[in-house]
Amino acid sequence: MSQFQPKNPDFRRVATDTFERQCAMRTLGMSIARMEPGEVDLAMEYAAEFTQQNGFVHGGIVTAGLDGACGIAAFTLMPAGFDILTVEFKTNLLAPARGERFVFRGTVVKPGRTLTVCEGRAYAIHDGAETLIATMSATMMALPRREAASAPERAHAPA
Amino acid sequence: MSQFQPKNPDFRRVATDTFERQCAMRTLGMSIARMEPGEVDLAMEYAAEFTQQNGFVHGGIVTAGLDGACGIAAFTLMPAGFDILTVEFKTNLLAPARGERFVFRGTVVKPGRTLTVCEGRAYAIHDGAETLIATMSATMMALPRREAASAPERAHAPA
Amino acid sequence: MSQFQPKNPDFRRVATDTFERQCAMRTLGMSIARMEPGEVDLAMEYAAEFTQQNGFVHGGIVTAGLDGACGIAAFTLMPAGFDILTVEFKTNLLAPARGERFVFRGTVVKPGRTLTVCEGRAYAIHDGAETLIATMSATMMALPRREAASAPERAHAPA
Amino acid sequence: MSQFQPKNPDFRRVATDTFERQCAMRTLGMSIARMEPGEVDLAMEYAAEFTQQNGFVHGGIVTAGLDGACGIAAFTLMPAGFDILTVEFKTNLLAPARGERFVFRGTVVKPGRTLTVCEGRAYAIHDGAETLIATMSATMMALPRREAASAPERAHAPA
Repeated sequence: MSQFQPKNPDFRRVATDTFERQCAMRTLGMSIARMEPGEVDLAMEYAAEFTQQNGFVHGGIVTAGLDGACGIAAFTLMPAGFDILTVEFKTNLLAPARGERFVFRGTVVKPGRTLTVCEGRAYAIHDGAETLIATMSATMMALPRREAASAPERAHAPA
Repeated sequence: MSQFQPKNPDFRRVATDTFERQCAMRTLGMSIARMEPGEVDLAMEYAAEFTQQNGFVHGGIVTAGLDGACGIAAFTLMPAGFDILTVEFKTNLLAPARGERFVFRGTVVKPGRTLTVCEGRAYAIHDGAETLIATMSATMMALPRREAASAPERAHAPA
Repeated sequence: MSQFQPKNPDFRRVATDTFERQCAMRTLGMSIARMEPGEVDLAMEYAAEFTQQNGFVHGGIVTAGLDGACGIAAFTLMPAGFDILTVEFKTNLLAPARGERFVFRGTVVKPGRTLTVCEGRAYAIHDGAETLIATMSATMMALPRREAASAPERAHAPA
Repeated sequence: MSQFQPKNPDFRRVATDTFERQCAMRTLGMSIARMEPGEVDLAMEYAAEFTQQNGFVHGGIVTAGLDGACGIAAFTLMPAGFDILTVEFKTNLLAPARGERFVFRGTVVKPGRTLTVCEGRAYAIHDGAETLIATMSATMMALPRREAASAPERAHAPA
């Protein structure tokens, strides 16, 4: 159970909408597997077209999944009318992204009026075993939705 | 002109080969636009299928381009027979990835026998103007090629 | 209880020795409050000489505590004869370092022969309440002790 | 020459004041060696009490210097009445902090109304030679000074 209280009772619908308007997530085959206030799992099936030279999923794609999960996790705690932009993130790649399926978990560590700090964990599921393959530490920023749309010089981010 | 002396005189061919075996780079439409010892530019055309909800290229995709550029930049300074894995990177997103074309520049800051530290800069070209949209700070690791292929538990990375 | 098995049965003594040879830790008033395989708490009392302009402990000092804790945590899992160097870390400052006492917790996320990835959490204890004030994500590197001492060009780090 | 135009004509005096109110900087022996709009050098003499186990300056102390330099660099571009807080930073340690003197250079990469992104470089001067020993990538946040003082829950940072 989540420790966070959502400010927008309609957070599930709004967060899902935002996610679905991200073409990149669809192209990468990402879907929302779980959503609680401040915690979101995205899932992705293995796809050969997103691999690196050894046949594992590319670290940049793993990062896109983690960024997406952290962004939506932060979004679930926003008041209505706000968009979430990624300020920065760091990814540590711990093991090869080898598996049939991947889960990207984003969790809010510290929500804030302007900035929200999240952590992400990526898991590969291979032959039924789950392996931690990457971690993320990310800063997300809330922006009034009108501003996010009309002021492109700041609208630089995912969720 | 580069300040670095490549250890493998054949570095261009080997680095290009490695890049071309990365399906993810091809799927994202990335190509090598420039390669010097320790410095590489990747280029990517705008593609609607890799955008976020405001129609700009997704921050995760920008990161994949920067990671790819840093990885190949580090690779150009490796001796023959080594592969390069990404250990970690941090991305700061500075402005929306809005443009017709994008350049991802990876530069070696400090080469090393085992670890190589790189910096990346991503630029959007829009109506002829170039804007810095993201920075990366990355750590890459050299691994004997045999080990990178046969020991998947460490072969977790891009270039 | 820790999930990790130490390779050096004498890890407590060796890790404590290493910590005590770090003058910076002593000057900052840091001490080891708890040590398990792969997990270490450092403690520090408030000291006015390490504050920033608002009277809270400086973020750089908080980072030194987290780096120290992560370094020793990684060190506890090293075989005998190795030293631990910090490769890189990222700190997110979440709240002011306001309190009478501070705890810096370093935890190993992924141990490795060469690289070990750790996470850190810093807490301020103020009027009996504990607040999470900062997080760290760090990469540590094992180096044979002989090499760490004689090859200063790589001996760049704390634990 | 700097590419940035300061918004506060009195920026030198205000930035110097802010720096001097940071006890930690004084304790570490840091001083402002150079200040231009968006670019600041701090200098520090070697001090045995801030070393790690091999006799080099501790990575946490190097980070405190870089954080201080980046914070003041961001501060020089703030309007009057604002304080600067550190949101996050990442440090890569490249070489041991071995020398008689150290310079910490902070440079603004992207100024912003709320967030300013900076890069830092730390140099050791040893026997007359200068070596790059560390890099930083940092996010700073502007906060109205009244709020920074009275709302300690956000006043978590250095410059």
